[in-house]
Amino acid sequence: MGLAPAAHVLYSQMRFNPKNPEWLNRDRFVLSNGHACALLYSLLHLFGYDFSLDDLRNFRQLNSKTPGHPEFELPGVEVTTGPLGQGICNAIGMAMAQAHIAARFNKPNFEISNNYTYCIFGDGCMMEGVASEAMSLAGHLKLNKLIAFYDDNHISIDGNTNCAFTEDVTQRLEAYGWNVIWVKDGNNDIEGVAKAIEQAKKVTDKPTCIRLTTTIGYGSLNEGTHGVHGSPLKPADIKQLKEKWGFNPDESFVVPQEVHDLYQKTIDSGIAAEQEWNALFSKYAVQYPEEAAELSRRISGEFPANWTSKLPVYTPADAAVASRKLSEIVIESVHDTLPELIGGSADLTGSNLTRWKEAIDFQPPSTGLGTYAGRYIRYGVREHGMGAIMNGISAYGAFKTYGGTFLNFVSYASGALRLSALSGHPVIWVATHDSIGLGEDGPTHQPIETLAHFRALPNCMVWRPADGNETSAAYKQALESKHTPSVIALSRQNLPQLEGSSIAKASRGGYTLVEKADADIILISTGSEVSLAVEASKFLEETKGIKAGVVSLPDFHTFDQQSHDYRLSVLPDGVPILSIEVMSTSGWAKYSHQQFGLDRFGASGPAPKVYDFFEFNKEGVASRAEKTVAFYKGKHVSSPLNKAF
Amino acid sequence: MGLAPAAHVLYSQMRFNPKNPEWLNRDRFVLSNGHACALLYSLLHLFGYDFSLDDLRNFRQLNSKTPGHPEFELPGVEVTTGPLGQGICNAIGMAMAQAHIAARFNKPNFEISNNYTYCIFGDGCMMEGVASEAMSLAGHLKLNKLIAFYDDNHISIDGNTNCAFTEDVTQRLEAYGWNVIWVKDGNNDIEGVAKAIEQAKKVTDKPTCIRLTTTIGYGSLNEGTHGVHGSPLKPADIKQLKEKWGFNPDESFVVPQEVHDLYQKTIDSGIAAEQEWNALFSKYAVQYPEEAAELSRRISGEFPANWTSKLPVYTPADAAVASRKLSEIVIESVHDTLPELIGGSADLTGSNLTRWKEAIDFQPPSTGLGTYAGRYIRYGVREHGMGAIMNGISAYGAFKTYGGTFLNFVSYASGALRLSALSGHPVIWVATHDSIGLGEDGPTHQPIETLAHFRALPNCMVWRPADGNETSAAYKQALESKHTPSVIALSRQNLPQLEGSSIAKASRGGYTLVEKADADIILISTGSEVSLAVEASKFLEETKGIKAGVVSLPDFHTFDQQSHDYRLSVLPDGVPILSIEVMSTSGWAKYSHQQFGLDRFGASGPAPKVYDFFEFNKEGVASRAEKTVAFYKGKHVSSPLNKAF
Repeated sequence: MGLAPAAHVLYSQMRFNPKNPEWLNRDRFVLSNGHACALLYSLLHLFGYDFSLDDLRNFRQLNSKTPGHPEFELPGVEVTTGPLGQGICNAIGMAMAQAHIAARFNKPNFEISNNYTYCIFGDGCMMEGVASEAMSLAGHLKLNKLIAFYDDNHISIDGNTNCAFTEDVTQRLEAYGWNVIWVKDGNNDIEGVAKAIEQAKKVTDKPTCIRLTTTIGYGSLNEGTHGVHGSPLKPADIKQLKEKWGFNPDESFVVPQEVHDLYQKTIDSGIAAEQEWNALFSKYAVQYPEEAAELSRRISGEFPANWTSKLPVYTPADAAVASRKLSEIVIESVHDTLPELIGGSADLTGSNLTRWKEAIDFQPPSTGLGTYAGRYIRYGVREHGMGAIMNGISAYGAFKTYGGTFLNFVSYASGALRLSALSGHPVIWVATHDSIGLGEDGPTHQPIETLAHFRALPNCMVWRPADGNETSAAYKQALESKHTPSVIALSRQNLPQLEGSSIAKASRGGYTLVEKADADIILISTGSEVSLAVEASKFLEETKGIKAGVVSLPDFHTFDQQSHDYRLSVLPDGVPILSIEVMSTSGWAKYSHQQFGLDRFGASGPAPKVYDFFEFNKEGVASRAEKTVAFYKGKHVSSPLNKAF
Repeated sequence: MGLAPAAHVLYSQMRFNPKNPEWLNRDRFVLSNGHACALLYSLLHLFGYDFSLDDLRNFRQLNSKTPGHPEFELPGVEVTTGPLGQGICNAIGMAMAQAHIAARFNKPNFEISNNYTYCIFGDGCMMEGVASEAMSLAGHLKLNKLIAFYDDNHISIDGNTNCAFTEDVTQRLEAYGWNVIWVKDGNNDIEGVAKAIEQAKKVTDKPTCIRLTTTIGYGSLNEGTHGVHGSPLKPADIKQLKEKWGFNPDESFVVPQEVHDLYQKTIDSGIAAEQEWNALFSKYAVQYPEEAAELSRRISGEFPANWTSKLPVYTPADAAVASRKLSEIVIESVHDTLPELIGGSADLTGSNLTRWKEAIDFQPPSTGLGTYAGRYIRYGVREHGMGAIMNGISAYGAFKTYGGTFLNFVSYASGALRLSALSGHPVIWVATHDSIGLGEDGPTHQPIETLAHFRALPNCMVWRPADGNETSAAYKQALESKHTPSVIALSRQNLPQLEGSSIAKASRGGYTLVEKADADIILISTGSEVSLAVEASKFLEETKGIKAGVVSLPDFHTFDQQSHDYRLSVLPDGVPILSIEVMSTSGWAKYSHQQFGLDRFGASGPAPKVYDFFEFNKEGVASRAEKTVAFYKGKHVSSPLNKAF
């Protein structure tokens, strides 16, 4: 309620068409403090989106359109919010996307892109580190079409913010390079809010934060207390409140006609604005046919036909290469064909190998380091912020985006990756240095639990390619994905090109790499351990007469979507299956009878020595395979895929 | 090398005894930019710690004392660092610990605790959100015995920080309530550094940051470039460098005697300081025997005898209670007996129920909200910062610490929890609202992958108690743990007190709750689904004549440590086992043949309706149990615990 006046002013002057919530040049609004979604749903109803009074009545009911936090799929909801700190970062990503579209497509007399991105965030968002990361970057990037409102209501769940949050927010934001305007009576000063927005729009080289000092639950008998933060108002309180604001206290879910009439003006002007834009774009298409075709294609989400012909293909004769380098070759190969590809790294460019040679950095031109038309983003050491910004870029539309860091530090961004998966933002994590194979940096940097974590996340692909063809397959699936994010785990160390791998096979998530008739055992593995499994298979046959087939399983999620028959052809009945992966065995029992992994932390040392230390060499694998064969000898062995339901 | 002068000044004036690195009142030093560990190892060698020149020669070699990042176990290394942003938060935790010890134990003429906490951090730490969270809190808490050095060298891996990090760090820290002193020539101004430390010590109500403008690789031919960030110097460069600083260029790993002599003075004065402190403490023990006994006991890490008698015990006659509430009852029951217990919440006190009734907040007295002797910490909405601060409190010694948030948001703190597990800090996460059972807040707040993630983390207990006795067991194990952190997952909704549960049984991590002779199936479950399994077992017997035993498995990690015989008695051969947990099935195949879980995101709605929607009710469990029994009928069923190795 403290925010209602500002929200009224904001929405009244925003430009959007509620009948086409997907219009590219609409102003965006993000409610970063997603728990205040009753406000957002009310706005969406009042401003003509497909939200009925019945939808509002069903607030927080199962399968309603008005869940407890706003969800991306709903009309007019730009991003899913609730986990604090994320929304403001999404808004920053949207403002970056807009700046890029404008720099790339605007022409004299053709301002194709000029939308604003608005956001409301609260004390909770401001305390979260993820917001700190992205807001510092937003200041650096001088995103002047970003206008955020800080709901300075002094209340969080623990009570008054003076118990934990006494920093000077204005000073902090100014330190980040933001313009800050303070509206001291956010409860009432409608004119002040309108003027602040006007002023913010005049600033050319900074994002603006409008600090709104408000009273939580303004008008309630408990206004200004944390009692109104999470709990509904009591009937008597609602009654006096309605009377105070001139409503009939006996009516609920009623919108006076004059309110509808007032807001209809905004709706009408939004519809007109889109029509004008469509007309402008038609003319643009005549004068700039290539640009228009590209933008239209990008908005549609379709890639150019035959783009996959750009994906590198390898044969076993090709040199052994680290998969992070193979990833770089893919990026180098496809970036020209896919101008929607925009990516970066959390300050590990030279290690992640995420930048193509001729890339221009995405930077404010005044830095002299790049332009807004640049497609390479220098995120700084800000993994979580990067993840949340990627979600914003993805939600904006017309982009495919990736971000690089070490696999171990994708965990710093768990909160953002979870929202990618939940909302269906098909962002890509280029996650290099994916195991103890990184060597000397040691256990602080060596992932153990990381793949198990992301594989347990619904709607998330977790690729760990074994060679060049599998790396191309991983990118093919990740780039073509419409609603599923990907983590691509890549090695620091060189990997040989495998006999029997192909883009088509790997694109199924799992396949038989080494077929053995009457196999005694199947070795199933991913990434850098697949070539080890192949080596062990040879060694087993030569030294023990054991026939070991090899299966490569670069992505569980994709494999799970194949037909049962196909999966059973890869992991058939009658053969014990041993998984080999140099990290947590957790999750592997789904595909194997026995697991060889690393259920402890790693060690610092040269990579080959670390592998040997943990017995991840052909002898170590072979001895475990031998034990597995012996254990299952004479027993009925059912494929782990056979299930009761 | 740019930091060496400041490190020399800092260590020369620090108070520590290298022969007893565990002395409670020593000054602490944390190298937050852990990749600069060559500096730290050199300091530890020079200042008399158990680090030989051979240790230094074995830098980054397997099983050496000088791994690629500093590790907690090493003498003189206060915390494991490397993942950026963590170290400065650990230092803040240590300064909080010191402030509490001083407030609790210091008496007139007995300044038992007065040590400083020092930290060096770099641009990378400053960019990480976790540092933002903790530094804002440190300012609020006015931790004046915290003195941090900001290595302002303008270089990160991507090159000059002007590509991504152009904020005004001084202004930002001042906004957080820090005192900032700028030493403009950190490369050379030894006197300036000394004076800055002196000044910092005079400040009574703020932490201090000494901003050291340095040149990375100072003295190298490549000084000031990112070329010296991660790569070793070339031989010619090393030669000129040694000549420049007056060393013999043909010698390596040689320390001139005069250097040893100089630093011996610091060592001697540290040894003397500890002796004086010991003498002081002996007198203190006479005058304040209770306090002295408490502190000595706390330093030893041992709990008072019979403390477990304080743990609440329940019978089935007791009321159904939410396990978050059961957790509150434990905290209420034991806090008096365990004065080392200090905890808080990330702004969810009223939801996590982490505060005992008479708790005093840990606050600067000037706030009027508490004192430094208070044991309840208001962390603000800062999960990651809380996790990293908890590691610092734990590393300080003489504390047991816990922090509350929703289970889903422990993921925000993955980076810190991983370091708890890696370093062996036995901190406790009170993780409430642990499933779709939280209801209306919906999928943004409902954990799915979270338990699978933490269960895959080595050295981490993940408790999900089913009732009051199991909650007591979880706390017993978590509190008594010396080297293993715990996540305790707790329900928002009420859970009945189970027939057959006990603290002793649950303390083994898993046990048979409902024994059935000639069982057709075993239902294995955790937390809120255990009572559902019991209900389903009755329903199966009554309606289908199927005999279903029930196993409760509140913690995988603890269960795994039981004897094979015990485990096999719980999960025996010959019976199919069905797991029931209302989240990701990932990891459950280790203990079961068939899994019933939720491998998708949840939904917003009243909890019972959400449970029904996903068929987590007795009928849903029973129908799956029936299918499982039918599937395994007539087949040889081997316990999932039987393995080839």
